[in-house]
Amino acid sequence: MDRALVAELLDLLPEGRVLTDPGLLGRYEHDEGEWAEFATPLAVVRARTAEEVQTVVRSCRAHGVAVIARGAGTGLSGGANASARSVVVSLEAMNSVVSIDALERLAVVEPGVVNDDLRAACAEFGLWYPPDPASSPWSTLGGNVATNAGGLCCVKYGVTRDYVLGVQVVTGTGELVRLGRMTAKGVVGYDLAGLMVGSEGTLGIITEITVKLRPLQAPRRTIAGYFDSVADAGRAVTAVAGAGLTPSALELIDRQCLLAVDAWKNMGLAVDANAVLLGQIDTVGAEGDSEAQRMRDCFDAAGATWSVVSGDAAEAEALFAARRLAYPAMERLGPVLTEDVCVPKRHIADMLERIEQIAAEHDTVIANIAHAGDGNLHPLLITPRADEPARERAQRAFAAIIDAALAYGGTVTGEHGIGTLKKAGLYQELSPAVIEMHRAVKAALDPDGILNPGKVL
Amino acid sequence: MDRALVAELLDLLPEGRVLTDPGLLGRYEHDEGEWAEFATPLAVVRARTAEEVQTVVRSCRAHGVAVIARGAGTGLSGGANASARSVVVSLEAMNSVVSIDALERLAVVEPGVVNDDLRAACAEFGLWYPPDPASSPWSTLGGNVATNAGGLCCVKYGVTRDYVLGVQVVTGTGELVRLGRMTAKGVVGYDLAGLMVGSEGTLGIITEITVKLRPLQAPRRTIAGYFDSVADAGRAVTAVAGAGLTPSALELIDRQCLLAVDAWKNMGLAVDANAVLLGQIDTVGAEGDSEAQRMRDCFDAAGATWSVVSGDAAEAEALFAARRLAYPAMERLGPVLTEDVCVPKRHIADMLERIEQIAAEHDTVIANIAHAGDGNLHPLLITPRADEPARERAQRAFAAIIDAALAYGGTVTGEHGIGTLKKAGLYQELSPAVIEMHRAVKAALDPDGILNPGKVL
Repeated sequence: MDRALVAELLDLLPEGRVLTDPGLLGRYEHDEGEWAEFATPLAVVRARTAEEVQTVVRSCRAHGVAVIARGAGTGLSGGANASARSVVVSLEAMNSVVSIDALERLAVVEPGVVNDDLRAACAEFGLWYPPDPASSPWSTLGGNVATNAGGLCCVKYGVTRDYVLGVQVVTGTGELVRLGRMTAKGVVGYDLAGLMVGSEGTLGIITEITVKLRPLQAPRRTIAGYFDSVADAGRAVTAVAGAGLTPSALELIDRQCLLAVDAWKNMGLAVDANAVLLGQIDTVGAEGDSEAQRMRDCFDAAGATWSVVSGDAAEAEALFAARRLAYPAMERLGPVLTEDVCVPKRHIADMLERIEQIAAEHDTVIANIAHAGDGNLHPLLITPRADEPARERAQRAFAAIIDAALAYGGTVTGEHGIGTLKKAGLYQELSPAVIEMHRAVKAALDPDGILNPGKVL
Repeated sequence: MDRALVAELLDLLPEGRVLTDPGLLGRYEHDEGEWAEFATPLAVVRARTAEEVQTVVRSCRAHGVAVIARGAGTGLSGGANASARSVVVSLEAMNSVVSIDALERLAVVEPGVVNDDLRAACAEFGLWYPPDPASSPWSTLGGNVATNAGGLCCVKYGVTRDYVLGVQVVTGTGELVRLGRMTAKGVVGYDLAGLMVGSEGTLGIITEITVKLRPLQAPRRTIAGYFDSVADAGRAVTAVAGAGLTPSALELIDRQCLLAVDAWKNMGLAVDANAVLLGQIDTVGAEGDSEAQRMRDCFDAAGATWSVVSGDAAEAEALFAARRLAYPAMERLGPVLTEDVCVPKRHIADMLERIEQIAAEHDTVIANIAHAGDGNLHPLLITPRADEPARERAQRAFAAIIDAALAYGGTVTGEHGIGTLKKAGLYQELSPAVIEMHRAVKAALDPDGILNPGKVL
């Protein structure tokens, strides 16, 4: 029966769309959430049109086989991981920027457009697409929307959800529908476009996206601070919020991450600090100068051992580049289990201290990067390769971090999504009645349960 | 059976909660959407707690009677209109600001808090809740969320949806659930909080709301322009968007509305123009001065007969007050049928001209106010009292305006919602497959169809 499905897809779709070679299939088994379970799919379809996606969904539905949508595979929770009786639909080849409308300040893109490519295309019109996950050189808009991706600028400019005006999706029943709008405002019916954002391919497969744009970001001042501990850096972040400042980025990197980046890229970064904060202010004029100085004062008052306000774009960009490279740099040291908790801003220092305790309690190396200004922390749990006891300790530490975040009134995932890696956390965070609402919505829009089954719920 | 329900509610709820006096019930029959159908409900419950709302929903579910949530009754589409076998739950008495957290920049409020009261409470903390429907002195947060209300500042700061972090709701099955989050970011499960926003009480009854706040808005410059026609004013709005400016408000008022306000309030407003544009710029410093001047230049280039940049708060506030009073002022002249179409910015002038044609074609008085910067137009169709032929002509004009907006790529409702008044428009705008998705979601979350039945769908 599964062989019949593959034959049907080969028959219905144009030459070259359907991959069945075991070597090629292996490349589509999992995203960066390697710790989550995965298997080899029956086939991979590299779709080029929405109608091809529709064909896949309809055939899979008829054969009772799962359909797993996949962008660049940079997800960190296993949301795009394949299961044994599944067909992976890769949207990578649907990578056209369909249109950019400067007057309406919106762009229409196919799901395979890479985040940085959209950013570059918009810049030619003096426009800016803000959401900037650290994976922006590789990750695609479809994946960004499916996970409601965040990034560095979210602390001032919001997440992917805040920019999605409309989507075209293939539903679980194989219908191709347009949801949302092309106008500045619109409230006709339920916000089904919003419901698709962050649904990780379980309610529909996104085949086109309309996003809002902003004018290009103003030049930025960077404020850097060195701290003796991540907790001191956390207190500085709380102080920045308490001072009523609105940074356009406020990132934390610890010593382990900086050393890993430097060892890899020879950026000459090695610094005499256990934690570094990188802030940005993009308010224009003298007001911006004043805000930057006030942020530096917050750093100093929280115990910064060194701090600086820099208007030098190159110097600032090097520090932010190091921040973006922290995750791949750590991956070179061994399998990384990535946390994504988000806590209220007043508890950032407490949470960072608790993470240090958890590392000690479970004898696990935990490095830290964080979108600190949002309270969105990314403890990176690193284990030696093929060390099963270390892996088990890391998984216990992972669970302990989730417990702590929930105890502080936080959430188990700020921006990476549930996939399968955070499913236990979802069941901890949401009440049974809310889980039941999720199941009802899932059943309503994907009655046969063929869209990315086993993810999220 | 219905009498048994009322007896049960009187028995289960504290003294004074359940109103059954016909004179009192009459006050809860409809919102400002008088043109939409309505009837006298079986009873009105003035709830004081979420648990009381839960009691009403459970009893009504057991008796198969509809539950209609209602805030201040300022809605314009009949979304809160009662039906014959219904119980109206008024949330007006649940009017506490539960907490304002300056560090996290969020507020928790009960649904009956009046928009302006929240704004005033936030100002004491140097914070600001942006969404500002013209009804802000009267309308409640619960109603604002249920309709995804817009307002004047949306052109820069977005709509209610952009500020809702979380809601507590009573579902159609009588469960009391918390949806959303208290942290800056969070993607645990589907965006069910977002789904509730704009669902007009058909998916859940909102009993608490957590909203994001911003720092208080900077002082504003007002840019006023007089024009010989609404179309000229429309061209000025398109020019402002084309110049890449981001006003913090950009409103249009026509002569008929200004005369009506002036006749009512003696504000000395009578102006020698057929249309007035009111813009605001809140960018700080010299940059703000430059933007204000550029907006004035756009007005002049589009044919303004007079224009001014004013930093005088009192003068500017008088003009904006007139804008906010336009709707009640027009209501004094006769029953008003309110449109709420939203069109792409490049078609604003075309659409305004088309509305003038439609007024002539259907021999109907149509005045215009508009959140022009968003392309969100509010043609006000005014008929003499008790003139049935005029009423029928107005309804044909109403349909013609919807047709025109859709032809320009617009939507039938920018911010007022569907209620019953825009239902025909919803069926025109959305495809059958999308309607089917709406029905499936409605059935999933309100399986017995007791929450505000007949609204939206």
